[in-house]
Amino acid sequence: MDRTLMHRTGEVTLTVRTPDGRPAAGRTVTVAQRRHAFAFGNIGFDFVPLVAGPGPAGAGDVETFGQAGGLDLERAEALWCNLFNTATLPFYWGGYEPRRGAPDTARLTATARWFAGRGVTVKGHPLVWHTVQPPWLLGLDLDEVERLLRARIRDLAGGFAGLIDTWDAINEAVIMPVFANGDNAVTPLARARGRIHMVRMAFEEARAANPAATLILNDFDLSSAYECLIEGVLEAGVRVDAIGLQTHMHQGYRGEEYTAGVLDRFARYGLPLHLTETTLVSGHLMPAGIDDLNDYRIPHWPSTPEGEARQADDVVRHYRTLFAHPAVRSVTYWGLTDDGAWLGAPAGLVRADGTRKPSYDALESLIKGEWWLPPTSMHTSADGTLTVRGFLGDYTADGVPFTVTAGRAAQEVTLT
Amino acid sequence: MDRTLMHRTGEVTLTVRTPDGRPAAGRTVTVAQRRHAFAFGNIGFDFVPLVAGPGPAGAGDVETFGQAGGLDLERAEALWCNLFNTATLPFYWGGYEPRRGAPDTARLTATARWFAGRGVTVKGHPLVWHTVQPPWLLGLDLDEVERLLRARIRDLAGGFAGLIDTWDAINEAVIMPVFANGDNAVTPLARARGRIHMVRMAFEEARAANPAATLILNDFDLSSAYECLIEGVLEAGVRVDAIGLQTHMHQGYRGEEYTAGVLDRFARYGLPLHLTETTLVSGHLMPAGIDDLNDYRIPHWPSTPEGEARQADDVVRHYRTLFAHPAVRSVTYWGLTDDGAWLGAPAGLVRADGTRKPSYDALESLIKGEWWLPPTSMHTSADGTLTVRGFLGDYTADGVPFTVTAGRAAQEVTLT
Repeated sequence: MDRTLMHRTGEVTLTVRTPDGRPAAGRTVTVAQRRHAFAFGNIGFDFVPLVAGPGPAGAGDVETFGQAGGLDLERAEALWCNLFNTATLPFYWGGYEPRRGAPDTARLTATARWFAGRGVTVKGHPLVWHTVQPPWLLGLDLDEVERLLRARIRDLAGGFAGLIDTWDAINEAVIMPVFANGDNAVTPLARARGRIHMVRMAFEEARAANPAATLILNDFDLSSAYECLIEGVLEAGVRVDAIGLQTHMHQGYRGEEYTAGVLDRFARYGLPLHLTETTLVSGHLMPAGIDDLNDYRIPHWPSTPEGEARQADDVVRHYRTLFAHPAVRSVTYWGLTDDGAWLGAPAGLVRADGTRKPSYDALESLIKGEWWLPPTSMHTSADGTLTVRGFLGDYTADGVPFTVTAGRAAQEVTLT
Repeated sequence: MDRTLMHRTGEVTLTVRTPDGRPAAGRTVTVAQRRHAFAFGNIGFDFVPLVAGPGPAGAGDVETFGQAGGLDLERAEALWCNLFNTATLPFYWGGYEPRRGAPDTARLTATARWFAGRGVTVKGHPLVWHTVQPPWLLGLDLDEVERLLRARIRDLAGGFAGLIDTWDAINEAVIMPVFANGDNAVTPLARARGRIHMVRMAFEEARAANPAATLILNDFDLSSAYECLIEGVLEAGVRVDAIGLQTHMHQGYRGEEYTAGVLDRFARYGLPLHLTETTLVSGHLMPAGIDDLNDYRIPHWPSTPEGEARQADDVVRHYRTLFAHPAVRSVTYWGLTDDGAWLGAPAGLVRADGTRKPSYDALESLIKGEWWLPPTSMHTSADGTLTVRGFLGDYTADGVPFTVTAGRAAQEVTLT
């Protein structure tokens, strides 16, 4: 066991009982991990049309991505569910409610249920953001925009409660009031009323509508600006459940030292860290001079053999760094396949033709290999117990479930 | 009158009376401006040794600058007082109290009085900062550092009350907890307790010790980070009197558009803006890649004829932009002469040999020329009145003082 991963493991003394309740002494049972407690996530945008059909009229007017046309549902499911246990679904206002008053509730509900039925935790992204807006929002006055935004937050957080209990409550609040890369109705509101007003609105409305929700403050800005925002928000008494850190590394892997430094800086607020949006490309790197990644538009951004080898290496280095840091609770990769990937980047773990890249295999070798207990024969002692030390999560003994939690615990299973 | 400067002017209908109190009809009087209401400032660091002698033992152990060895007091006074009405004096902890318990109170008091006696407003800089620390502070525990810092704030703000009623309460709080360019005792405190804790401490201690003080939050970071800090501080209920913006442009003048954009962004908090630290060099520019200006150390940084022409042009463009913006209340230039200038830069308005650079003349042509009413003969009407429209500030009519305030007002002077 890697000492740096001790915080990811626990030890269970498991008393195995026969169906009649007596300790099963000297018995061989197969112990197997079923699920990680750690959230290994990916976006599930591709699955919305696969599971629930095409989007509403007008949804195509706003930017969309993650439409894996090259995969059928069965192949997509096999690739996705093999690695991931947490799915982020898209609730961009412009895509979700392209026509005022006609939100895409049915398709998102169906897709969320589809994931939930496979044991996948579903997360919604994002309740408040200034980008990917519905055109009908432009031109409304500030009070009306705020009223509609509050109603949207309540409708989503409340309407999906129980099915979706994790939300990016507000996205990119640091740049929100000074965003200059596209007209929208939220930037003027944030400029007039302030970042903390926006953050409070998002968290308080969502919290009221779903008190059980895990609500995340999410940003791509990992500079002191985000620290200052967090300190202001916490000082203002807004209850934040987790700090979301985006890391779209289209311009190249940022390295272990940088990453660990970022994690340490944001861990000092004592809140869980969610690596909400993680990208590493398997083609050429986007030039470093591009400030807003959205400004880089090229007709074709191919995945290359050299790029795929580098991406696999980067993925392993990055996930090792994140998994080793005790504050990190969740890592969401930003896309399964290159088909329809954000910015057209070869950011997937799977090529557009549905074949696995080396990065997929590399990530599998961590999530389902090095950090995973495969079905293993174990023997109970004379008192019917055996000891399982493993990565935190759900397990079975001869098919009967038990859980490995932090520290040491005693549990029982009764064989059937 | 330039329409963009209307907010800098006022109109006074002045009733001029003869010594016996009757209206002086049809009389010629000389009206002259004596002082700007706008704070045209400069540092007065050079004057401390000139006025009050050498510093205490140990003061040389910490970084100092602004020691104009090339000028005597008379020449320095003539050059300084011709243009400026507000002096920033240095209260860097390491220079002010190099030996614990033996602060340099006497010299700073003498220098502040010297300026005050010449009609100059004195400002103290800074109460809390992480740089230029006394060596004896290192190694003390956090509680002790906070206790000493609070005592220092009270001692300075309270002890100098009436003589110094304007303070940079805290300097560079954005970088304070993550500052990595030199060991100090304040960074660990800020890291442990948060930026807003530090800001609140500075403002509340200083406010308690001198309720009449104008207390400034000051930073070089003009990015969204500073906005986020300000929003957090205001949301936390800390009363800030002015927002301080540093602009050390050793790497080149940043231009009117950039400057106006910065002013607009920070003006939206409804607080006065103080341009606290303004530098434009008259030699080669510091390379753009240098992040912390303190890292650029060269043996000799000469003032050049081309550089002096550029500096004069930059100074005029920059001061015009600042004076035109209604939120700006104060502009402090960072040094009079090149002799002993910060970073050895040719940042002065005066060369090391005491001769004026073109930038000095250019600034004089604004402050004492275009934006100034020189002694002017005016004639009272039959009822003894005359109308003065001028830049806000102090004036005299035949030597008798009156004031031009914003808007329109009626005033009286009685000739002697």
